[in-house]
This record gives sequence, C-alpha cells and structure tokens, in this order.
Amino acid sequence: MREFLGVDAGGTSTRAVLVDVEGRCLGYGRAAGGNPTSAGSDPAAAAVGDAVAQALTAADGDPASVEQVLVAHAGGHADYQPGIERRLGALGVAAGVSRAGDLLALFASGTPETEGAALISGTGAIGGAIRDGRLVRTVDGTGWLLGDSGSGFWIGHLAARAVVDDLDGGPATALTPAILRRLDLQERPGTRDSRPIVLSELIHRLYALRPVQLSMFAPLVFELSGRDPIADGILRGAVDALTRLLHRVRTEQPSGPLVFGGSVLVQGVLSLPADLVAPLLGAAGGRTPATVDDGLVGAAVLALRTGGVEVTADRFDRLRAGIGEAAAAFAGRQARA
Amino acid sequence: MREFLGVDAGGTSTRAVLVDVEGRCLGYGRAAGGNPTSAGSDPAAAAVGDAVAQALTAADGDPASVEQVLVAHAGGHADYQPGIERRLGALGVAAGVSRAGDLLALFASGTPETEGAALISGTGAIGGAIRDGRLVRTVDGTGWLLGDSGSGFWIGHLAARAVVDDLDGGPATALTPAILRRLDLQERPGTRDSRPIVLSELIHRLYALRPVQLSMFAPLVFELSGRDPIADGILRGAVDALTRLLHRVRTEQPSGPLVFGGSVLVQGVLSLPADLVAPLLGAAGGRTPATVDDGLVGAAVLALRTGGVEVTADRFDRLRAGIGEAAAAFAGRQARA
Repeated sequence: MREFLGVDAGGTSTRAVLVDVEGRCLGYGRAAGGNPTSAGSDPAAAAVGDAVAQALTAADGDPASVEQVLVAHAGGHADYQPGIERRLGALGVAAGVSRAGDLLALFASGTPETEGAALISGTGAIGGAIRDGRLVRTVDGTGWLLGDSGSGFWIGHLAARAVVDDLDGGPATALTPAILRRLDLQERPGTRDSRPIVLSELIHRLYALRPVQLSMFAPLVFELSGRDPIADGILRGAVDALTRLLHRVRTEQPSGPLVFGGSVLVQGVLSLPADLVAPLLGAAGGRTPATVDDGLVGAAVLALRTGGVEVTADRFDRLRAGIGEAAAAFAGRQARA
Repeated sequence: MREFLGVDAGGTSTRAVLVDVEGRCLGYGRAAGGNPTSAGSDPAAAAVGDAVAQALTAADGDPASVEQVLVAHAGGHADYQPGIERRLGALGVAAGVSRAGDLLALFASGTPETEGAALISGTGAIGGAIRDGRLVRTVDGTGWLLGDSGSGFWIGHLAARAVVDDLDGGPATALTPAILRRLDLQERPGTRDSRPIVLSELIHRLYALRPVQLSMFAPLVFELSGRDPIADGILRGAVDALTRLLHRVRTEQPSGPLVFGGSVLVQGVLSLPADLVAPLLGAAGGRTPATVDDGLVGAAVLALRTGGVEVTADRFDRLRAGIGEAAAAFAGRQARA
C-alpha cells in the first residue's frame, strides 16, 4: 500500500498524520512543539520523530511503505532537516523528507486548489499569495516591532498600553481590572517611583515578558467586545488592519479561493458582532472563506502532491474529514486521561 | 571659599561643574556616559570621577573646600553611589554625595522655583509635577513598549513601520528613501523570502537593533515636516501625545513655571511650523516655557540647596549664564582639537 506522512511542526505542538493515496487517514500523532526557532533544532526534530512514531503505531503500518514525508514549519535551521531524517530513519522510514512553509500548508489545509490567497492572524499576522501550488508573495508578517498589524501581539500590546494609560490618569477601561486580575495584581493606595504602586508593579511585570507574550491579553480584549469602548476601538483597528492586509493580498492574487487561519482571526475576529467584522467580510468579496485550525491537512496534501499524487476534491474532502476526526478523537482521549 | 559640585550623569555624557556659594561657575568637565543602567555601575562611576576631576583641575580649586556633591541621574544601582564616593575620595573630595532624579534636575535647570512642572521628550517622554522642591508625580515615562508617546522612539518607530509598509505595498512616503539612505540600503529587483529584497534586508537590519535605537530615525521625520504627509501625520500625533501629557501633568500641578527639556521637544517639536505645534503651546497656557539642554544647572542648584544655600533668582541667573559659557567654551575647544 502506498503511504504518505504529513507533519505540521508548530510552536506549541507537532502533529503528524499517515494517509494513503486516496486521502484516507491511517494514523495520527501529536507531540511537543517542533518549530526549530522556538524549541531549538534538536528538540524540534525529536518532536517530529515522536509525532511520526505515534502516527505509525496508531496505523499499525509498515514504515517501509511510506513513499514521501513532508514537514511544514516556519523558519529554518541547517541541522533541523538532517535531525528529522536521522530520527525517521531510526523508525524505519526510508522515504525522502521534503519541507514546506507554514503559510503554504495552512492554505493547502483549506482548499485543494493551487492558486489563491491566505490570511492568517495568530500571534503574528501575514497574508500569502499562492500560484502553481507555491507561495509567491507574502504581505506583512514583518514581526511585532515592524508590522503584524491586527495580530494577537498587536491587540494585546494596545490593550497593555491602554491599561498603563488608564492607571496613569488616562481614560478608564474595563481592560484594566481584566489584565490586573490576569496578572494577580491589585490596586492599592500610595505611590512608588512617583507612580501609583500598581502601575509601578505592572510596568515591571510587563517588561519582564518577551514582547510577543503580550499576545496573551488578546482574548481579554475579545471578551470585552461590545462592553468597553477602548476594547472595541482596538478590535475595530485590528479588523481594519486585517482588511487592508486582505486587500493587498488580493491585489497580488485576485483569483482562486481564500483561506483564513490563526486563532485570532478564526476564533476571535470571525466571532465578533456583524457590524465590527463587516469590513473584512466585505473585502473577502461576499464569499465565506474556508477556515483552518492548522496546517496538518495541508502537510498531507503537499506530501501526496510531492509524491506525484493528484489531490482531487474527493481526496481532499476525505483528508479533511478523516484528519478532523482523528484529531478530535486524540483530544478526547487526552481529556479523559 | 565654600564650593559645591553638581554632576549630570546622562546616558551619552557626564557633565560636572564646580560652583561657589554665589552661583559663580569655577570649573567645568565632561566625560563619558555616567548612567549606571546603560553604562554599568563601575564605568558610570568612573565617568563621574573623570568629569569631577576635570572640573576641579579647570578651577584650580581645593577639593577639600567642596561642601556638597550632588549627582543627578536616572535609574539606580546599589554599587553606583559607593563607587562614586570612592572615586571622589581619591580626588580629595571629602564632602557628602547626594543624588537627585534626572527629571528634577532638568526642572531645576529651568527655574529657581520649587514648584511647577516639567515636560521632557528625548528618546523617552515623561512629565513631572514638582512641589516643595521634590518630584511628587511622574506621568508617562513608562518606556518604549508601554508608553513614551511623543518621544524620539515613538516617532522613529512609527517612521520605521511606515517605511516597511511602503516597501510592502502600502502608501508611499519620502521617509523610505531617507531611512534606506541612512542605513545604506538600496532598492533592487527581485524577491527574497517572498518579499522585495530591500524589505527583507531592512527587516533584518532593524531587528538587529535594540528597539530604542529606532529613535535614530526621529530627526529624519522632523526634516520632512511640511514635505511628506506621512511624516506630518507622525509629527501631528507626537504633538497630540505631548499635549495630552502636558494637560495631565498640569492637572497634577497647576501652578508654578513649566520647563521643557529633551532634544525631541526642544530642538524638534518647538521648531515645527506654528500650526503643527499650536496645540502644545496652547496647553502651555500661552506662557513660553523655559527650555533646558540638560540637568547640569539643576544639579548645581540642588547641590547648593542640599548644602543649605538659598538659590535666589540672582544666583540662578549667574549659574545659568556661567555654566552655559563654560559648556560652550568646552565644546569649542573640543571642536578645534
């Protein structure tokens, strides 16, 4: 039997899936973060090996039947790919290992077509134009300091600034009690360094974080939507920024389907009240974009395609359904354990 | 003769002045950066010793006649003050060393009064309310990530983001050629990492900086005032932010003189066309605020006051004139050397 391995090596977790030539899901596995930049090359490669071993075990498959492995990940490192090949070799997988960017894998998780556009907002924000099955242009994704407008960092950063401003005599916002509670801080009388004590403490706590960690406050902003003008202003700004990003991606690639990904976009922005999200849906041209949770289906799609298998609409639907079920079953087992 | 030493230990340079009880400037010295946070405690204390040694030599004074030393600086470190005392002891200065914050020293550089407000915009932005000769409340000054709206970092950061946006398909701005020239980068055909090559290079260069170093671009924004809508928008935002800051400081301390300091405010904002700077001058209540270059006069004022000497308007004027002349003469000698 012809078998193919798709791996989505993300910052938080690594997911692997073994599929057959018709797109049937044979086995699924999930391990620690596999991004070489955030986890380090060696632990990242080990996580990929771990997820693949689980998928092979679940399928009770023959590792020698695997024709092609594709690992989707952001960034890159010289010793990451050799580390993966060594670990897969030890599992008995002799097939070649190819790689794809995370943006292309997310797009391919949402559609079997090879031309279109992707819009992602998670911790960062990025748009991609895809042609001939390849990423030909990214827009934004320039990081927390220089871009990523409308991302989780961008939202959380503005929330943190609004709270600092509130405690420093600026406009009151319900974000203040929410963020103080999140950090276990309390307002109390008196000053330190010529500032209210809680403001002084908050400043110390926030500078102790890596800047991108400010994205942890983004969910609090979404929770206050419709109940706090400052939170609504930040969310309106995020929708505007993502709308501009989508316009620009569509200028690069006007035709083909549109895929939305990233927790901030899929779980946050798309759940906002209709009037807030309207500009973005308008820019999507009225069509409802496909939404994806991660790049795992896309990694399987790209593994098949790299192995010379055409991914028809039937095979794609089978991949999406089977991988979705396997992921849900895995999460269910974890929740019970 | 009763003598007093004032030291302004800044991030870029440390200035020391020896004055007599009537406010006459007896000797001036200038050395490397003396801020313990940016230079490290030991090199910072050494710079203070170096500047003081120059001031004593220039005055041909007797170190034993020094009644009081006052060092003005931002931040603090446990071993900074003992390091200064050791070095001054080695120079024969037996007097006590006291310290003051940089904000109070800047205020005291602009007025002999002991009640009023200060507004500073340099790399950062901060306001201070002064009562009974002490800083009772600071507003903003919460740093590049959380505040400092209207500062050199704030302006330079928005300029860098505007240029990244321009090169990524956003609105064109004259800041782009200006910043690319400043960094010796050139636009050229082709893409790297699915982006225009120059954008990819710019991103790498800017992330290699410490964030606050983005303030290096602030002067380019001021240069383009009246000639580029994006630059003007950033400057208008900076004036608005500083105007809000001034309103808030004046709420804390409505009476007494107002002192403006920091290169961005004094050399940049106050030189903008009248229509741009109007909101800030309006918030200053029509009075022209005193402007100061640094906190050295204030350090001398505070040294005298700590030593029990009343700083009358006459003595203050003498300090300002004498220290101004000494600093200009020192700069002139350096330029000729």
